[in-house]
Amino acid sequence: MTLFALTILGNNSAIPAFGRNPTAQILQMIDESFLIDCGEGTQLQLSKYKIKRSKLNRIFISHLHGDHYFGLIGLVTSLGLLGRTHDLHIYAPAPLQDIINMQLKVADTSLPYQLVFHALKEEGLIVDDKKITVECFKTQHRIECWGFLFRQKKNPRKINADKVKAYEIPAAYYEKLQQGFDYTTKNGTVITNETVTIAAARPKSYAFSADTIYDESLVEKVKDVDLLYHETTYLKDLHERAAARYHSTTYQAATIAKKAGVKKLLIGHFSSKYEVLDDFLTEASEVFPDTELALEGICYKI
Amino acid sequence: MTLFALTILGNNSAIPAFGRNPTAQILQMIDESFLIDCGEGTQLQLSKYKIKRSKLNRIFISHLHGDHYFGLIGLVTSLGLLGRTHDLHIYAPAPLQDIINMQLKVADTSLPYQLVFHALKEEGLIVDDKKITVECFKTQHRIECWGFLFRQKKNPRKINADKVKAYEIPAAYYEKLQQGFDYTTKNGTVITNETVTIAAARPKSYAFSADTIYDESLVEKVKDVDLLYHETTYLKDLHERAAARYHSTTYQAATIAKKAGVKKLLIGHFSSKYEVLDDFLTEASEVFPDTELALEGICYKI
Repeated sequence: MTLFALTILGNNSAIPAFGRNPTAQILQMIDESFLIDCGEGTQLQLSKYKIKRSKLNRIFISHLHGDHYFGLIGLVTSLGLLGRTHDLHIYAPAPLQDIINMQLKVADTSLPYQLVFHALKEEGLIVDDKKITVECFKTQHRIECWGFLFRQKKNPRKINADKVKAYEIPAAYYEKLQQGFDYTTKNGTVITNETVTIAAARPKSYAFSADTIYDESLVEKVKDVDLLYHETTYLKDLHERAAARYHSTTYQAATIAKKAGVKKLLIGHFSSKYEVLDDFLTEASEVFPDTELALEGICYKI
Repeated sequence: MTLFALTILGNNSAIPAFGRNPTAQILQMIDESFLIDCGEGTQLQLSKYKIKRSKLNRIFISHLHGDHYFGLIGLVTSLGLLGRTHDLHIYAPAPLQDIINMQLKVADTSLPYQLVFHALKEEGLIVDDKKITVECFKTQHRIECWGFLFRQKKNPRKINADKVKAYEIPAAYYEKLQQGFDYTTKNGTVITNETVTIAAARPKSYAFSADTIYDESLVEKVKDVDLLYHETTYLKDLHERAAARYHSTTYQAATIAKKAGVKKLLIGHFSSKYEVLDDFLTEASEVFPDTELALEGICYKI
């Protein structure tokens, strides 16, 4: 089975509290790891959960509030000290590039690897690899803020070795079969694609919807994903405070999940005012039953 | 007894390793707390060791290598979120001010308290309070780097209540007695100061000598202090690597302590290549017996 899993490194908002760390997530897709947001202490969390830094090739930063990126410069610097030589791609709001460069400059540090900075400008495709794509989309927050949508590409159908042999289909035609075409024999008999191939696993998707006020335009953006991460800074009774601070409540996150028809909802970015998190799960589940709390160190298979 | 104590929040160099955090120390002097350096995660360490942030009024940053200041912006921001209203003074190399301001600006954050930035320019007095002074001095490192010398001011002599009453010395003269003057009665008899006052405790001092190559000019700068913190990134066999990287070894730190005639030496800033620290203590003690390892969470009384 193709690896597609999300590990939570931090699930708290703003001020670290009750042992909860600020936002950071590792998404493993096939043979790459992606880091989504990088709150203070993320490099320590990577060590704690034994995440291989060598496989970390892309970092996505949603916005420039500290609890989402203050750990980035430490990680970038440490990767250099550890002798990394292969490229590291950062996708983030434009001003982050100056912040990083300024800090490298005052330290008189040249990284031994290439830091490739991609300033987020408009919604759409930002990564188009062999096996995956990543799109970014805007969310409504107090400052410029981006969500990210990770999709596996559709896998080719698998050749049924016994059947292609039995029907004497030439190997040169296998690629066509993988793409779903039927095969017509010399005497005109049509061998349907389903007869000689096996469907590949359905490509899956993960949406990280970042910090956001309740915003129904998100519904279209995260439609039908297998896993949606939506922030729930507050319980439902504090919807006024949530709106004032451009954050969401349990009910609001669950409503977006329901309207978007996602398979599963993961909630996080809990306010430091809450020590116990049980009510978050209870409230969100009332609206959208297939909800889970984003808990540090837990790996959620997608 | 007057409070003068140092708590270590981090003792590692460069990359966090073996559960050791980057440099940060809390110096408690009388009723104030000073933070010396602020590596990533310092705000979490302050919580872990239950250090009251409300008493933290001055932060001293030695230099702009990340393991000495990457935790500062998180702390500064969190103090704002926690509703601090009283001034916070930062003493640091000049470029840090732009780095902080740029990060506050992109987050659209205005702090609810005044951040008073003091750019370090020349050696000498930087704080002159009622009861303490702080001086800064240059150390030899790869980039601009500063050490800090904290001194209690000389306390006034204490009035012996029984004696001043017995000699019928008027209260108006007590301040003179505290300053060390004798008292002459109306009939010309001299009451010596020692007869009616008690000597105050000797003022003490702490020197944080920051990151530095072995540098004998430090000897004069930290002469006779009660406690000297000196970095020992490497054991003595790696003196060539230490010099190349502008760091010090155990023998070198202990030699400075010995030549300066300090009362006690504290060593830290251990390289991530060492898991066990015993050899640091053994080697430094060979040259300067009154040495201790700077260990996280330990409070060293001065």
